[in-house]
Amino acid sequence: MSISADTDATLYLMGRLADAARTAIAPYYRNDPETTAKTGPGYDPVTVADRAAEKAMRDVLAAERSQDAILGEEYGETSGRSGWTWYLDPIDGTRAFVAGLPSWTTLIGLVDEAGVPVFGCIDVASLGERYFGWPGGASIETADGIAAIEVSDCTDLRQSIVSTTDPFILTPAEEGAWTHIRHTARISRYGLDAYAYARLAAGTIDLVAESGLQPWDAAALIPVVRGAGGLALDWHGRTATAKGGQLVCAASEGIMEQALLALRRSAD
Amino acid sequence: MSISADTDATLYLMGRLADAARTAIAPYYRNDPETTAKTGPGYDPVTVADRAAEKAMRDVLAAERSQDAILGEEYGETSGRSGWTWYLDPIDGTRAFVAGLPSWTTLIGLVDEAGVPVFGCIDVASLGERYFGWPGGASIETADGIAAIEVSDCTDLRQSIVSTTDPFILTPAEEGAWTHIRHTARISRYGLDAYAYARLAAGTIDLVAESGLQPWDAAALIPVVRGAGGLALDWHGRTATAKGGQLVCAASEGIMEQALLALRRSAD
Repeated sequence: MSISADTDATLYLMGRLADAARTAIAPYYRNDPETTAKTGPGYDPVTVADRAAEKAMRDVLAAERSQDAILGEEYGETSGRSGWTWYLDPIDGTRAFVAGLPSWTTLIGLVDEAGVPVFGCIDVASLGERYFGWPGGASIETADGIAAIEVSDCTDLRQSIVSTTDPFILTPAEEGAWTHIRHTARISRYGLDAYAYARLAAGTIDLVAESGLQPWDAAALIPVVRGAGGLALDWHGRTATAKGGQLVCAASEGIMEQALLALRRSAD
Repeated sequence: MSISADTDATLYLMGRLADAARTAIAPYYRNDPETTAKTGPGYDPVTVADRAAEKAMRDVLAAERSQDAILGEEYGETSGRSGWTWYLDPIDGTRAFVAGLPSWTTLIGLVDEAGVPVFGCIDVASLGERYFGWPGGASIETADGIAAIEVSDCTDLRQSIVSTTDPFILTPAEEGAWTHIRHTARISRYGLDAYAYARLAAGTIDLVAESGLQPWDAAALIPVVRGAGGLALDWHGRTATAKGGQLVCAASEGIMEQALLALRRSAD
């Protein structure tokens, strides 16, 4: 990995944001009874954790990058003057979080003036895995250290491992496209939320297709996938942006072409 | 947790078996390129890991419990004279394993002469979580130590978190039952294999319903669920045995009754 000083500083700051989110969220994961006992009816631990984590990340940004804008899932938009916008999703995969399953993540994206997601971080706190992506590279950080990652060398959808989060939230047309893909692929996996993109970047999943993505999801995922050598497009086959909506990421052009045959028919 | 000396010795031995499996499997998880490079075409790392792990567990049993029978996924049946049979599934969740997802497990069950699964272990190596179940209790072991676990206090399917491994491998009748359950429940999760039962025992999932279970799956899962205070039945509502097939586990009688309304219609 060769990383410029500016890139290094940005990734370091992203790591600090992820650390702040981990600290804020930790008391609430798999700890429902205890936290619930402290509070009244209607109390929702995942919402409390979500807000606490976004607040913690915003505090770091206010101190370190007050010139940048922020778009967060919980607290909306804060304007800036640098042209850069931080996209924050403190807990992606809230259903996994509530079910005590470790695939929930914290998503951090840094988007330029043109709406291009340039830097991304997928932090998987309960697995001790943190994924980074930047122009030209991607990495995984664990207790063992930092290692470069890249997508798999799979080029054929028929040999591939594919994933979507919930086959039952797709529209009928989208479900038709997904059914085509899953019947063509070798293995299908569900319920992974942003973690599927992290594993695509790390080379163990070959295609992820989803609809209804939020801007704060897309902004973090796209740089990690691209930095690892993968492709990120909308279902028309156009360059994906931080807008969200329908997103398809693949390890290779070969897989992407085969998947788009199905996905284009239900592209928004 | 109060545990008799005999129970304690059995759980300790189960832990040794799980340790042996972890050691045998570790070189193969998320390490496809390197291991593949060592070998010829047609080489399948998950099969090699599966066999190595079952062999390692069988070696421990041959030394420590030569009077017991063994039924393993990879090497079939070995007869015994004690009336006890060890059921071994070295890697449950092979599709998760191949996709580099940490929910694969090693399953160890100890079944009595009547076919009742009495002791169970669900070892989740890549999450550092090990679940045990025995008559009267269940526990989770992590780097932080050992803690008793129990199922949730949820009694209403409408408030529950439910799981099945793959909604697309069910028969049409089974799928009808599952669709009913998932529309009634609060949250559905997929792709978890045996890990779903571990999290049911630990209180974060409330119902798991699956068909086509192998004896070496059922034998390990049932004691963990029962030890944690959960119910394990077939889809007719009869006591589940180590036979496998259709299995439904629930945190409470309330949830189980509601689920059986749907499941009974497609019971084998």
